[in-house]
Amino acid sequence: MIRIEKKVLDKVARAEGVPASVIVRGVANGTVVIPANNRRTLMKPCAIGRGMSTKVNANIGLSKGRSGINAELKKLDVAVKTGADTVMDLSTGPFVSKVRKRILSKCLVPLGTVPVYELACMPGKDFMSMREDDFIDIIKAQAEEGVDFFTIHSGISLEEVDFIKETNPRILNIVSRGGALIAAWMAANKRENPFLTRFDEVVDIARRHNICLSLGDSLRPGAINDAGDRLQIQELVRLGEQQQRALSRGAQVMIEGPGHVRLDQIEANVRMQKTVCHEAPFYVLGPLVTDAAPGYDHITGAIGGAIAAWRGADFLCYVTPAEHLRLPDVEDVRQGVMASRIAAHAADIVKGIPSALKRDNDISRARAKRDWKQQYELALDPDLASRMSRDHVLKSGDVCSMCGDFCSIKTSEGLLKMRKPRKIRKGRI
Amino acid sequence: MIRIEKKVLDKVARAEGVPASVIVRGVANGTVVIPANNRRTLMKPCAIGRGMSTKVNANIGLSKGRSGINAELKKLDVAVKTGADTVMDLSTGPFVSKVRKRILSKCLVPLGTVPVYELACMPGKDFMSMREDDFIDIIKAQAEEGVDFFTIHSGISLEEVDFIKETNPRILNIVSRGGALIAAWMAANKRENPFLTRFDEVVDIARRHNICLSLGDSLRPGAINDAGDRLQIQELVRLGEQQQRALSRGAQVMIEGPGHVRLDQIEANVRMQKTVCHEAPFYVLGPLVTDAAPGYDHITGAIGGAIAAWRGADFLCYVTPAEHLRLPDVEDVRQGVMASRIAAHAADIVKGIPSALKRDNDISRARAKRDWKQQYELALDPDLASRMSRDHVLKSGDVCSMCGDFCSIKTSEGLLKMRKPRKIRKGRI
Repeated sequence: MIRIEKKVLDKVARAEGVPASVIVRGVANGTVVIPANNRRTLMKPCAIGRGMSTKVNANIGLSKGRSGINAELKKLDVAVKTGADTVMDLSTGPFVSKVRKRILSKCLVPLGTVPVYELACMPGKDFMSMREDDFIDIIKAQAEEGVDFFTIHSGISLEEVDFIKETNPRILNIVSRGGALIAAWMAANKRENPFLTRFDEVVDIARRHNICLSLGDSLRPGAINDAGDRLQIQELVRLGEQQQRALSRGAQVMIEGPGHVRLDQIEANVRMQKTVCHEAPFYVLGPLVTDAAPGYDHITGAIGGAIAAWRGADFLCYVTPAEHLRLPDVEDVRQGVMASRIAAHAADIVKGIPSALKRDNDISRARAKRDWKQQYELALDPDLASRMSRDHVLKSGDVCSMCGDFCSIKTSEGLLKMRKPRKIRKGRI
Repeated sequence: MIRIEKKVLDKVARAEGVPASVIVRGVANGTVVIPANNRRTLMKPCAIGRGMSTKVNANIGLSKGRSGINAELKKLDVAVKTGADTVMDLSTGPFVSKVRKRILSKCLVPLGTVPVYELACMPGKDFMSMREDDFIDIIKAQAEEGVDFFTIHSGISLEEVDFIKETNPRILNIVSRGGALIAAWMAANKRENPFLTRFDEVVDIARRHNICLSLGDSLRPGAINDAGDRLQIQELVRLGEQQQRALSRGAQVMIEGPGHVRLDQIEANVRMQKTVCHEAPFYVLGPLVTDAAPGYDHITGAIGGAIAAWRGADFLCYVTPAEHLRLPDVEDVRQGVMASRIAAHAADIVKGIPSALKRDNDISRARAKRDWKQQYELALDPDLASRMSRDHVLKSGDVCSMCGDFCSIKTSEGLLKMRKPRKIRKGRI
């Protein structure tokens, strides 16, 4: 039985505008998760899953000593201010533990990590010589620090590793950083994935701290050519089994998904995940609908994310313009969060989240009245909207400088003034 | 019978990689258009429609004296360099004729206009007092200058204008600038739309110059609340009739479409247009999947545009970050073209345009080899990709600074080196 603290539950129920009982039921049957480590007090917890608004995650973190702790704290701040519902610290390098502790102390939203990264960065130790126990111990340590959700690459097994070694089946075999590390460890040690063989121990740690397990897709496609192939499906089937096992032992679980997926395969991906994984919350990275737009992957990801969320994905991991090119900077973080929020919002309109549709209708009504102040307030990014237009509107009276006096709204408003409304005539086509 | 000059035909056939005969057949049955005024020599003509790659249009133009001719020429240059297939000059204000002539003299790609704008900007003349003949004369004049395609708001009739006046049925009744002008003229003069009553004359002018008519949707939804309503459909039905009429008289026609449309209504919109308008090329503005993201409407438009093009739309009118806020600047133009190109490319992959899928596979292969030069070359925006990453890659050897030494591609490449390929083992799930 998964227990959620009452004050956390009340907060998320209020934020969603649904009764707490609905959320409790969703958590119990595994369709909703609330990542909130009971070791820390979370200012802004959130519920992820069926019936909830679509959530957005922002990844931050040092890359082997590049960037710096202050730069990452700045990214954390910008991500949360821009509206990220959760943050993942994906730091690698010698300072990974120090960075995480600082981020945890400042992070108002649920914080996720990929514990295997810390294992790969142990000073003076070779990852390939790590013992199985080390994989469990690192999870235990991070759990006690207060991390709210863990990406655990428990789905990849020796079978897939051998298959890749033997057949080199993809353009890009493994694009998951954690997944590639575990695959390399398995191959070097000729041993099965410790997260798979000792999955129950992982689950028990998660349950004790009310950590949500995010079962990672080591074999997600990193090229649209590779999407939906045997490797991806085979891992997904295993994740579906593990999801049931974790849920039955009282831990919260969500499932991670691709990746790079063509427009016409996204819906199938989401439906397949939901079926195979028993309607567990689906956490997608993008998906990116083309491989060919480096520098704009916040846009390729927003296209895929909107479709995925519309079709049932619950949680969008942002992608920044820096994806495939370099470590994102603060501005990349802002752009990435906004693009994912737009995708999530567009999907929430069709998912039937009442506040989403209301927001659109309200901003359009403000547009009809040329009430600029209200338009800015209702915009997903009020600051940018106001900064881009304020001067232009002020110079133009009540219209913006795009159409100026030829503002269609103003022109057609004139129509309504032309005569008094009379009885509605029956329309013909 | 629509005649396309041989050198134009050869150019577009080469660009599409399809036999000229396929294009000729498409033009003849109205599923493909090639806007190319026979008064001028077009350096980069293009074919728009079924079986062709998805095209992108960029709007530029003064707004009642704001901006300047040089600024607009700069936008033209950036739009074409960034990859716009066509450009529309939407200038209003006293210099509209002068601007258009300058733009026409520099424009390598098909140029479109909305002739009614010039009529609305005649020095010393009131638009409401224009005669029917003026509507025809302005088209004639611009046709002789060499404009390649015209937006003609021929679909809106007194019936819709009356319906709007009487019932005020929408949050935003008319958001088309040209459509609102014509509606206001009709209401003020209590006369039918001259483009509707004298449609055959418009068609004959277009045919004579091989201009493509782009039948404008005056009643496109400007708020997702208004999408797919009676007004939109009623106008579409009329556009479908006019499309047949124009085609039978030997003019090329495409149909303009929305606008603001929820994710789950885009496909229906495209299919409905294609059916009602006899598979004529569909030219959509966005569609924007939410009203609430001013400042990011290149992204809301890319989401909708990708879905629309996937479902059959042929031609995407870009939307810039400045939409709803102000006249776009040069950087807005660049962002808008790129966002639409990404949407078009993502759709072309699933439309089965061979070069699109090849590009994705090639860039992914370059990524697998960490061949950065080739990745930049194959990127939809090579300059940006290279600018964003070059220094970071140089500092990091052959990996980017995102994952550094933990590059998943490098790690999993190691797997393949571990042992020699042996016979493929039969896979189990």
